[in-house]
Amino acid sequence: MGRIWSTKRVESLPQGALLTVKLESGGEVIAFDPLGCGEGEEVLITQGSVAAGYFEGVRAPVDALIIGSIDEDS
Amino acid sequence: MGRIWSTKRVESLPQGALLTVKLESGGEVIAFDPLGCGEGEEVLITQGSVAAGYFEGVRAPVDALIIGSIDEDS
Amino acid sequence: MGRIWSTKRVESLPQGALLTVKLESGGEVIAFDPLGCGEGEEVLITQGSVAAGYFEGVRAPVDALIIGSIDEDS
Amino acid sequence: MGRIWSTKRVESLPQGALLTVKLESGGEVIAFDPLGCGEGEEVLITQGSVAAGYFEGVRAPVDALIIGSIDEDS
Amino acid sequence: MGRIWSTKRVESLPQGALLTVKLESGGEVIAFDPLGCGEGEEVLITQGSVAAGYFEGVRAPVDALIIGSIDEDS
Repeated sequence: MGRIWSTKRVESLPQGALLTVKLESGGEVIAFDPLGCGEGEEVLITQGSVAAGYFEGVRAPVDALIIGSIDEDS
Repeated sequence: MGRIWSTKRVESLPQGALLTVKLESGGEVIAFDPLGCGEGEEVLITQGSVAAGYFEGVRAPVDALIIGSIDEDS
Repeated sequence: MGRIWSTKRVESLPQGALLTVKLESGGEVIAFDPLGCGEGEEVLITQGSVAAGYFEGVRAPVDALIIGSIDEDS
Repeated sequence: MGRIWSTKRVESLPQGALLTVKLESGGEVIAFDPLGCGEGEEVLITQGSVAAGYFEGVRAPVDALIIGSIDEDS
Repeated sequence: MGRIWSTKRVESLPQGALLTVKLESGGEVIAFDPLGCGEGEEVLITQGSVAAGYFEGVRAPVDALIIGSIDEDS
């Protein structure tokens, strides 16, 4: 995982960390991170409109969200 | 299928089992399991906002849900 | 196409036929069939929340729906 | 692009042309065509619930829609 | 990235730039650009109904949206 910085952005994109997450399938997705995850952490993500629904009171254009960190002894 | 444990998680993620499900196509998805499925069981999953819609009264950030177990003699 | 039987299922999954449909792309999807399609029939499917929206008055956890059968002389 | 005919169809599927559209990625999708496109025309499509949202006052089970034709000198 | 021109289009498609964006995974997507991005710029996109939700007061048939430009020193 690596952090992405974007200064030029649409106004409705919430402030917060955007991380590049490697998928098991081999691809990558850029996800919003409300949990403060670190490099090398294994995380759960949710995609699509479900990710946007996490943000209350705003229509956030976010289609990938980190929802949990997988316990190391899983 | 294997169970995933996540202690550090967003609050809106419902309590309950998260299982790694192998797809016919070769990939994997982590799905919420309301049925208590076991290792080796063949299951049906639904994905996307339809999965989140299963949870009433909350906006659950869940994009994959086990909706049934396939009968062995199917 | 083959029929899938699932006795252990979430309550909100509507009664009705579930068929395994082969996609042109090579994969497979399990779709709800409101039309009574038969083995070997070529069908149109719709996926995602659009499929769930077919069911009125319920929040059906269905993410694939057969919406038509392709005429043989198409 | 080729036209698809479907006589046996769910009632909520709007009347109109259904076209097979080849994707750049190599796959194919069957899309509703409100623009009257012809064989060989390069088109823009939109997929998912956004496609269904095009139809006002009905819950159309359409998950792919032609939204424009690409100008030849693009 | 290259710009796409479409004169023949559905009325609900908002006026504005449509850009062809190359994905990390190798594919391509045509996205609406509210930020005025240029050739060679690395951008963030959001897909699906989340992209359409960006447009207020209209049901825009847009399933891909540029939401930010990645800072060069990211």
